[in-house]
Amino acid sequence: MPELVMTASSASAPDRLQAVLKALQPIMGERISMAPSVREEHSHGEAMNASNLPEAVVFAESTQDVATVLRHCHEWRVPVVAFGAGTSVEGHVVPPEQAISLDLSRMTDIVELNAEDLDCRVQAGITRQTLNVEIRDTGLFFPVDPGGEATIGGMCATRASGTAAVRYGTMKENVLGLTVVLATGEIIRTGGRVRKSSTGYDLTSLFVGSEGTLGIITEVQLRLHGRPDSVSAAICQFENLHDAIQTAMEIIQCGIPITRVELMDSVQMAASIQYSGLSEYQPLTTLFFEFTGSPAAVREQVETTEAIASGNNGLGFAWAESAEDRTRLWKARHDAYWAAKAIVPGARVISTDCIVPISRLGELIEGVHRDIEASGLRAPLLGHVGDGNFHTLIITDDTPEGHQLALDLDRKIVARALSLNGSCSGEHGVGMGKLEFLETEHGPGSLSVMRALKNTMDPHHILNPGKLLPPGPVYTG
Amino acid sequence: MPELVMTASSASAPDRLQAVLKALQPIMGERISMAPSVREEHSHGEAMNASNLPEAVVFAESTQDVATVLRHCHEWRVPVVAFGAGTSVEGHVVPPEQAISLDLSRMTDIVELNAEDLDCRVQAGITRQTLNVEIRDTGLFFPVDPGGEATIGGMCATRASGTAAVRYGTMKENVLGLTVVLATGEIIRTGGRVRKSSTGYDLTSLFVGSEGTLGIITEVQLRLHGRPDSVSAAICQFENLHDAIQTAMEIIQCGIPITRVELMDSVQMAASIQYSGLSEYQPLTTLFFEFTGSPAAVREQVETTEAIASGNNGLGFAWAESAEDRTRLWKARHDAYWAAKAIVPGARVISTDCIVPISRLGELIEGVHRDIEASGLRAPLLGHVGDGNFHTLIITDDTPEGHQLALDLDRKIVARALSLNGSCSGEHGVGMGKLEFLETEHGPGSLSVMRALKNTMDPHHILNPGKLLPPGPVYTG
Repeated sequence: MPELVMTASSASAPDRLQAVLKALQPIMGERISMAPSVREEHSHGEAMNASNLPEAVVFAESTQDVATVLRHCHEWRVPVVAFGAGTSVEGHVVPPEQAISLDLSRMTDIVELNAEDLDCRVQAGITRQTLNVEIRDTGLFFPVDPGGEATIGGMCATRASGTAAVRYGTMKENVLGLTVVLATGEIIRTGGRVRKSSTGYDLTSLFVGSEGTLGIITEVQLRLHGRPDSVSAAICQFENLHDAIQTAMEIIQCGIPITRVELMDSVQMAASIQYSGLSEYQPLTTLFFEFTGSPAAVREQVETTEAIASGNNGLGFAWAESAEDRTRLWKARHDAYWAAKAIVPGARVISTDCIVPISRLGELIEGVHRDIEASGLRAPLLGHVGDGNFHTLIITDDTPEGHQLALDLDRKIVARALSLNGSCSGEHGVGMGKLEFLETEHGPGSLSVMRALKNTMDPHHILNPGKLLPPGPVYTG
Repeated sequence: MPELVMTASSASAPDRLQAVLKALQPIMGERISMAPSVREEHSHGEAMNASNLPEAVVFAESTQDVATVLRHCHEWRVPVVAFGAGTSVEGHVVPPEQAISLDLSRMTDIVELNAEDLDCRVQAGITRQTLNVEIRDTGLFFPVDPGGEATIGGMCATRASGTAAVRYGTMKENVLGLTVVLATGEIIRTGGRVRKSSTGYDLTSLFVGSEGTLGIITEVQLRLHGRPDSVSAAICQFENLHDAIQTAMEIIQCGIPITRVELMDSVQMAASIQYSGLSEYQPLTTLFFEFTGSPAAVREQVETTEAIASGNNGLGFAWAESAEDRTRLWKARHDAYWAAKAIVPGARVISTDCIVPISRLGELIEGVHRDIEASGLRAPLLGHVGDGNFHTLIITDDTPEGHQLALDLDRKIVARALSLNGSCSGEHGVGMGKLEFLETEHGPGSLSVMRALKNTMDPHHILNPGKLLPPGPVYTG
């Protein structure tokens, strides 16, 4: 009697997964883990409630490893989710059923460093902090700073940005090229080392922000920037939210090349005063500034900014003269999440993330403050005000009812942002958390095109299925 | 006897074209032209030798017009080429056989102007010069400057840049969103007004640089910039090419926010001295500088630049103090093509366009100078040296043999650039002229993905067929 041959189209999902693992075992050996602790660690990102265990975790050590895994997963229609540092807050790394989590965190090489041209090529698993430590001697740095210790690959996949985007741009502006493994396991390179090019479709930009749904990024060519000679920081407080926003808006309109301009509302400032010991400040709306450049350039930026702030009823600049003071100030800004969490011990903090044209920001935040009040929740607010991007840190009970209250509030905030020409995510990405807003934001036509692209690149939907795109009609040309 | 029904799959190309024109006639009326002079005007771009008459030219006055034309062309499988100002130098606007040229030059509205947010939305047919005149009162301007009087839509389609890209970026960095008519006639909007977003595939970047092969761009949301308070210009001459390039490289490495830094080699400088009457200068390698910003910032940029140039054997800065002097200097730079053309009256001038990482530029240009010498041709060289991008203006007889000699030289130049991590086009695009280099530059894998995207967006290949992508294998997932 002939042995029954299993095929991808006839086998069950568990059998297909086993077929992949059987094929990978001789090649990947101990780099495949099914240990409960490892699976648990790869079952969720940060902040969001969603989680699901992968059946196995495979640790890739090269682009070739990633290609091998995808080739078999493609053959057997087994879903794969790339995993870097697990810092996503929108559920990007949560595996679907019967899936493999493909961990790239061992891929940390700097493949090339071209200091003269201000670029480098890194493997996707390196974190931005490690990169910046390793290239320190060159006088260069990679400026995109999303806060957490994220991997460069993950930052590409979510089109991350953060506090310095107002000066240096986001991952979109700072990635020159990629190595990507396609669903089939085929390896391609996109872009290159040149500063600009007019040859062919911009595949680099297509993969940046695609959240592992079109291919898995294994190497990244990055723009680097010279470390500035001079750094200066300050904060300015305002009785009135509109005055603070008007100040930020005028700074941008004047073309001041400010490095960071961050807003905390009075609730967040009160929490940060408490948590970070900033007792010399008032619980008022506050702008945090960072200026960099040559000493003369910094001086000029500062003078202009101070004049703008004072013209908008700013309550005087408080200078962080020393490096310690500066670090303390910016540490307080980066610890805002923990300060919010400390308001109600044991509570959960859920971060929203929306963005509007800066002229609409005052109207939006006022509306959000009303929504927060109506919700009965506490929700400090802070953001990258120079970009029009902010986060509300919703504090809620860690219960299903508590999550529901937070979600209801988030929906109101997003609806307001979208009605003001905004986007439902400035930098966290869609993942699972923002799926419901995409159609309102982009319209059915654009989404149908995105689905067509997804089907073209990954017809069996093995690449991070269920993320980024809600189901719906597909553009068919 | 029943009338025979013509179908798209059975009819000949001329019959299909007639079917489209018959369907469009009642809707578009006099906006369809078959006048020989109009067809001739739409048969070619600039500079390149290629031309072919469209069967008809349709003048669109709205996105809806474009949608109507595409819907019928899609139904009858009739090729469509968008036409703006016709300034392409790589044959982008040359119609294939039995095609319609769709002219968008009447679509010149500024749809919205959001001065507070530094953005605007324009119809694709407006030229950058007209836009800048119309928004002058706001104190804002659109900085991407490819030299010619191009339309914003055409600049998007070719991912144009030019002399100011070193400071302000290219179209890629300055387009926030688009309205695009897809092959079917469906209208979508991509991107939006926000400065950044992490929601969904970056369709805007996919269409920017797609040369009318994935959809036709009808509206563009643009970033604007504040007009600088202060402008200063200078030139500096060098005995040695490497010293000039080293100067440009150090300017970039130091992070000096220079607005323009342009190189002319000694051959081009000699021609420009003659043509533009710059008799106070020597026929030497020359850098042209423009500095903008606040008076203090300009002063500092200038001082640092002067120190760098002098450290690299620069023969002193020559200042253009007055606005007239500045205009004269930059007019000479912009007239470089005409200066080259005047070297040999009646000759043809063919512009090459390649780009490398700036550290490879010296090696590349030295090699190009050797290639030029070996060719026996004259070919002044100039470029956007801060980006690593330059053009050689090959002067040749306007005969098939002359064109062949120029083409042979161009191939050598491109091969050198590609061997130095370069791209075969920094800003002119692929069109028909650069098709042969794409596979070497991007590799077969990336091209197979581009073809798959093309097939998904335009399965019947009605959108500018024969441009941007050479035929070959298609990624099938």
